[in-house]
Amino acid sequence: MTDQRVTRADGRAETIMQATLDVAQETGYTKLSIEAVAARAGVGKHTIYRRWPSKGLLFLDALLSLNEPVLDFPDTGDIRADLRRQIHATVDLLGTEPWAPLYQALVGEAQHDPAVAAGLNERFTRPQTEKTIARLKTAQHQGQISPDLDLDLAMAILSGPLYFTFLITQEPVTHDYVDRVLDALFAGMSPRPPMR
Amino acid sequence: MTDQRVTRADGRAETIMQATLDVAQETGYTKLSIEAVAARAGVGKHTIYRRWPSKGLLFLDALLSLNEPVLDFPDTGDIRADLRRQIHATVDLLGTEPWAPLYQALVGEAQHDPAVAAGLNERFTRPQTEKTIARLKTAQHQGQISPDLDLDLAMAILSGPLYFTFLITQEPVTHDYVDRVLDALFAGMSPRPPMR
Repeated sequence: MTDQRVTRADGRAETIMQATLDVAQETGYTKLSIEAVAARAGVGKHTIYRRWPSKGLLFLDALLSLNEPVLDFPDTGDIRADLRRQIHATVDLLGTEPWAPLYQALVGEAQHDPAVAAGLNERFTRPQTEKTIARLKTAQHQGQISPDLDLDLAMAILSGPLYFTFLITQEPVTHDYVDRVLDALFAGMSPRPPMR
Repeated sequence: MTDQRVTRADGRAETIMQATLDVAQETGYTKLSIEAVAARAGVGKHTIYRRWPSKGLLFLDALLSLNEPVLDFPDTGDIRADLRRQIHATVDLLGTEPWAPLYQALVGEAQHDPAVAAGLNERFTRPQTEKTIARLKTAQHQGQISPDLDLDLAMAILSGPLYFTFLITQEPVTHDYVDRVLDALFAGMSPRPPMR
């Protein structure tokens, strides 16, 4: 009986997540409302508010209900190839239709709502950062990454240029762009041999 | 007579810009409204709507009315010192109180409103990018920057990691963080000598 109830509750949550994504895709994030999601999911508004205190948090859950497994880090022993493959996969997921405008809206909402920012960080950015650092640490031990590289900066340096293009210039983040960024980051800005 | 009218109109625009910044600082961007700005500036709502069709564009103009001269690129002949000084100045302006939350809100709004994104790009990001590229080109000619560095990526690579911290992890962007990012970008991720 209890199990059945849990299953029913989970099924309802799934229906609400799907309704949120459907409405967001159809109307855009700005016009997304808890009323519209409730109507689409066939539940009462308060059913949604009980679990999701704001539109931003509902939307965060809906987006995060989708993407976990794709973004795991491969380890083929070649750090450049692995980074390339993993970043291409992320860009394919978050940077292209239909998700690009939704993920962009979520990051936009995170600028206005600290709870959304914290959720996005804890549930998406930090786990991705930890996987990135773990993979780079292995590569550093294998001599494929400079022993001096400050791994705490790795996520900012690798994904910052992509976020800049996605959020600020709002140009398409293509595989070619990712490859050019990786080339530049691996080579460094200093002429070789270094001037220092 | 015409000149006097222009001066009066400019004075009124200045009053509206200041009122926008005051209200935004007091209430936060989410609660900023054209009504509240009109009341503070002592003008009618329609006076504002005639020139600024949305709250986002009004806010963009208000923020951009402030920061131009500080962000010019120095050229002392030492590219690392100059980048460091210029980025510190930018971070001091945009990344600390009272401007940090306002600039953050503006970038947030740019994720929902393409007109705000385009305005921010044309009037702030692109000019800054051009100044950055020009300064780096000189340094490249002087042998201080790798001849292979793709200058079209320079702004994304230099400012992307700072935007990542500002917008995504939302940790403070300190001078020390800027210095660590510059060190990592100049050195590159590859071990030296390069593996390729």
